[in-house]
Amino acid sequence: MKEKENNLGMSRRDLLGGTAKTAVVAGVGAVAVSGANPAFAQGDHQKFEMAPGELDEYYGFWSSGQAGELRVLGVPSMRELMRVPVFNRCSATGWGQTNESLKILTEGLLPETKAYLAAQGKVTYDNGDLHHPHMSFTDGTYDGRYIFANDKANTRVARIDCNTMKCDKIIEIPNAHDIHGMRPQKYPRTGYIFANGEHEAPLVNDGKILDDPSQYSCIFTAIDGDEMKVAWQVIVSGNLDNTDADYQGKYAFSTSYNSEMGTNLAEMTESELDHVVVFNIKAIEEAVAAGDYQELKGVPVVDGRKEAKSQFTRYIPIPNSPHGCNAAPDKKHIVINGKLSPTVSIIDVTKVDALFADDADPRSAVVGEPQLGLGPLHTAFDGQGNAFTTLFLDSQVAKWNIDKAIRAYAGEEVDPIISKVDVHYQPGHNSTSMGETAEADGKWLISMNKFSKDRFLNVGPLKPENEQLIDISGDDMKVVHDGPTFAEPHDSIIVHRSKVNPAIVWDRSDPIFQDAIKQAEADGVDLEYAEDVIRDGNKVRVYMHSVAPTFSLEKFTVKQGDEVTVYVTNIDDIDDLTHGFCLSNYGVAMEVAPQATASVTFIAERPGVHWFYCQWFCHALHMEMRGRMFVEPRGA
Amino acid sequence: MKEKENNLGMSRRDLLGGTAKTAVVAGVGAVAVSGANPAFAQGDHQKFEMAPGELDEYYGFWSSGQAGELRVLGVPSMRELMRVPVFNRCSATGWGQTNESLKILTEGLLPETKAYLAAQGKVTYDNGDLHHPHMSFTDGTYDGRYIFANDKANTRVARIDCNTMKCDKIIEIPNAHDIHGMRPQKYPRTGYIFANGEHEAPLVNDGKILDDPSQYSCIFTAIDGDEMKVAWQVIVSGNLDNTDADYQGKYAFSTSYNSEMGTNLAEMTESELDHVVVFNIKAIEEAVAAGDYQELKGVPVVDGRKEAKSQFTRYIPIPNSPHGCNAAPDKKHIVINGKLSPTVSIIDVTKVDALFADDADPRSAVVGEPQLGLGPLHTAFDGQGNAFTTLFLDSQVAKWNIDKAIRAYAGEEVDPIISKVDVHYQPGHNSTSMGETAEADGKWLISMNKFSKDRFLNVGPLKPENEQLIDISGDDMKVVHDGPTFAEPHDSIIVHRSKVNPAIVWDRSDPIFQDAIKQAEADGVDLEYAEDVIRDGNKVRVYMHSVAPTFSLEKFTVKQGDEVTVYVTNIDDIDDLTHGFCLSNYGVAMEVAPQATASVTFIAERPGVHWFYCQWFCHALHMEMRGRMFVEPRGA
Repeated sequence: MKEKENNLGMSRRDLLGGTAKTAVVAGVGAVAVSGANPAFAQGDHQKFEMAPGELDEYYGFWSSGQAGELRVLGVPSMRELMRVPVFNRCSATGWGQTNESLKILTEGLLPETKAYLAAQGKVTYDNGDLHHPHMSFTDGTYDGRYIFANDKANTRVARIDCNTMKCDKIIEIPNAHDIHGMRPQKYPRTGYIFANGEHEAPLVNDGKILDDPSQYSCIFTAIDGDEMKVAWQVIVSGNLDNTDADYQGKYAFSTSYNSEMGTNLAEMTESELDHVVVFNIKAIEEAVAAGDYQELKGVPVVDGRKEAKSQFTRYIPIPNSPHGCNAAPDKKHIVINGKLSPTVSIIDVTKVDALFADDADPRSAVVGEPQLGLGPLHTAFDGQGNAFTTLFLDSQVAKWNIDKAIRAYAGEEVDPIISKVDVHYQPGHNSTSMGETAEADGKWLISMNKFSKDRFLNVGPLKPENEQLIDISGDDMKVVHDGPTFAEPHDSIIVHRSKVNPAIVWDRSDPIFQDAIKQAEADGVDLEYAEDVIRDGNKVRVYMHSVAPTFSLEKFTVKQGDEVTVYVTNIDDIDDLTHGFCLSNYGVAMEVAPQATASVTFIAERPGVHWFYCQWFCHALHMEMRGRMFVEPRGA
Repeated sequence: MKEKENNLGMSRRDLLGGTAKTAVVAGVGAVAVSGANPAFAQGDHQKFEMAPGELDEYYGFWSSGQAGELRVLGVPSMRELMRVPVFNRCSATGWGQTNESLKILTEGLLPETKAYLAAQGKVTYDNGDLHHPHMSFTDGTYDGRYIFANDKANTRVARIDCNTMKCDKIIEIPNAHDIHGMRPQKYPRTGYIFANGEHEAPLVNDGKILDDPSQYSCIFTAIDGDEMKVAWQVIVSGNLDNTDADYQGKYAFSTSYNSEMGTNLAEMTESELDHVVVFNIKAIEEAVAAGDYQELKGVPVVDGRKEAKSQFTRYIPIPNSPHGCNAAPDKKHIVINGKLSPTVSIIDVTKVDALFADDADPRSAVVGEPQLGLGPLHTAFDGQGNAFTTLFLDSQVAKWNIDKAIRAYAGEEVDPIISKVDVHYQPGHNSTSMGETAEADGKWLISMNKFSKDRFLNVGPLKPENEQLIDISGDDMKVVHDGPTFAEPHDSIIVHRSKVNPAIVWDRSDPIFQDAIKQAEADGVDLEYAEDVIRDGNKVRVYMHSVAPTFSLEKFTVKQGDEVTVYVTNIDDIDDLTHGFCLSNYGVAMEVAPQATASVTFIAERPGVHWFYCQWFCHALHMEMRGRMFVEPRGA
């Protein structure tokens, strides 16, 4: 292998030496596995086990990758408190089956997607790939309003209402392909959600262009997080991986691991330098306001490709295949993680103005580039000037000092690395308590490891992943807990409990069931007292309310072939007194939490006596909370 | 309220006093909530936290109720190790989408169910209500072969192969309605799975009989667990709730909370005595062998109703609305839990022979009936002669001695209750380590509590439930851990790790992908080397293999409207190296664990360039593991 010099003054070996390259190719097979961490001494750490009844200090909002849901954990106890269905189907809650959830899942889909799904006999997707959950910000810290999350599988962005902890909006992003990196604006508040289209494809992807990569492009999207509408898009050079925003409200930054726009492994990893794209939000907004854009599928799209030489973007060269993109709580630095380069690159946001105003050398914004180890993927922060970077190939986390790294880059003889700790095994994302905000508090670090191998009882060919809880309150990092998780704990944020204040029961004015209220009003029914069956041609609307341990209707009758909609309103207003409605042998089930209304529609094609029952345990006489649907056979 | 005497010599107040009745009606609203358990002193218990890398001593197999999946936990750490999709859809694994899972989900459905589903545009149910996971037995203890589980929602029974930890069979139970209680035969081995049809309905439920409860019946089913076929059924009087089998292979026992066959709350709770049905397995087998049965939907059905006075069943009167049914590890006693009665009733299985042979008074088999508290639901055992019963209304677990309870019933002045402990709140099922087997070891008890209320950070109107881990190694029970869980941790078993030995990677001869192998052979394709696209009219079969970080095909082309089946074979044979196949904007995703083949079929209705990618993190170059599907537009 030729050891040629590149324009950063780094040798190829610095970027990724021969041995390292071999390790990359050999992949995870080469990792050594071991038993309990010998460095771990019990008691020598902050308290993380919660005694019965003790409350955690933090909410953890966890992605689930290809499982498609959001998870809420208690941190530091690492106990899963709730699953929030988002892009997946949920047998328990009826997500993907109730009319309320179907509205959220379908109303944001593009017409061509609806047509595709109809050809499969569906109205919505049943899967998603939820990678990055991030909370809305006000003035540089979490404000407890929303969690936003991307769907890489089907190019969507979802919003979860932190009041009810339910998904309240999902939109499909036009023109882009396969949303990966996604972050909210941090300042002055989360107006925008920035979303990276990862995969390159024809801008108008209607089949006229197929195997002609020269005509492919990638799209960066800004979504209005309040309205959940696409505000504008930017065509870029190279693909887009992860993204983050500054603390000034001026710029967003996206990594590109495939600036080559290659379509296979060799092409994608060919170049020794890829880049970070810097988006100039004000310049883009001005162009959009001035009408200086092309409109594609109803969205203003500006051209921010390298060759367009616009004021919309700058391209900062970064060593091979940068991946993670993380704004430090010092409000000044963005850390770019090298993946195939052993380095991270530190961008000083105060130097970015000059890139646009004075056309300064893009690399002038890079103020540090420490070598940390093999496979740096993501970086988190403690708010005390230190950074924690996952090293995928080394199966380690490196703790390093940002200021020392900058001084070293400037020529001073100083080692920025403070300590390293082994994790088990192959870490991807990591997160620190409040670490994505200006209020990073330096208490806890989660390393989200892709392989668990021998760390838990064997559960067959499919293993859990392993989230390790690390005490970072001292100089040395201490791994205190292994947390197995089902696919895929892709990313997480750790939010102090003072920031989140969910409702105890539903508010009857919540938008999610306003359609049900309107329909009931049209039928002359008051949902909270309902015990009505309304026939409207072959449509039958069945209204009932529930109060433990009874439904207001103990029976109702429909005809075979009727389109039946059942509305259930839970008028119990006691904390935790959720009911369910499950119609047996009809494949119908839904959650009805206190003070909520839920509805479901089905064709009553199966004649006979069919019991509906409450499937959410509610009372000593819960099993007696049931009733009958009579379906009169066709022709009877 | 009239304090009349009943035929057991117990006053109505004994069964359920005035205050208690009020508490039942007031339900869970009346519970007092409190903070941390003051009785809990850290360190004063068996070790339950696992340090990083330490392995749990037990596998916990957990139901998820209406979530429809099986969960595998590590006990005592209470960490979730794996989710096994069964009756639910799974975005991550493609369960309910892959051809392999669809075969399992559909092949056991009845023809009328297939017709009903087709009218909804479906081929299978998307939900289930998985209540009771139980392992197969050999000679009175777990044998590590299978987990069986019921679906109350859609009348099915599923089997999970403990070698791969995947569901391998699901059957719908004809004639019965809404399978609730389900247990395997304990001796000599699990030939039969006994399954209770909970809800009463017309035996032929085709709509000719509707609101005529006098013509409803309930069905008890014995399934051949090796073949997963219904062996025989018994028509019974009263509904069926929970069930268990003896250690002799002679009898099964089922509780009936609604012996009245009522159809509303008042009717269902009217009688002061309900019953346990005892099934005489040999007598039923002999009748079936002799052809002495009616055949209904292909199943031999015998009449075991009270009025039939057959040798198939006996009806033991039990105080109001018995619920749980639990065979003790002493191989002699079955404990029936009173629910609306404050008692549990102890049946001596050695006295059951006389009920059949000599027509002895059915109550003569009851040898104890201690009053434990309000709302006894389920009982677990320590193998040292003690029992642990959940008290739903008292929010407690009572520890009591079986022998003392029997002596007290015989007239001796002895208090069988050893101690009680508060749990939080409203416990349903419980389980002890190995407690369902003759090897009950008396170490751990799980109390599965239906409400968590204030025990965890508030996550909105829907709360987690709360599984509490209780150290039962001493006389006093110690609650050591609160475990929040998503709906619904209905039931669990705790199996010593020495009993379970799952595979590390898939065996290429596993039945689950034999259809794929056969189709590939017919197409002249070797799956392990495949990189082939076979066109067969408008059907296209795309064969590829995967080895980190590449798919063997970097692109393939189909025509709009083609029916495309993609087969992916993961030839990596490294522990934990699962790949995925996700086809973006097509709603297609599936797991392909090491050495497995998975396939998925879809209509290529969306023209253009569509990336498929590996969504199961596999390698440092995981994100580069992707390829393109080109869909040529119709008419192009």
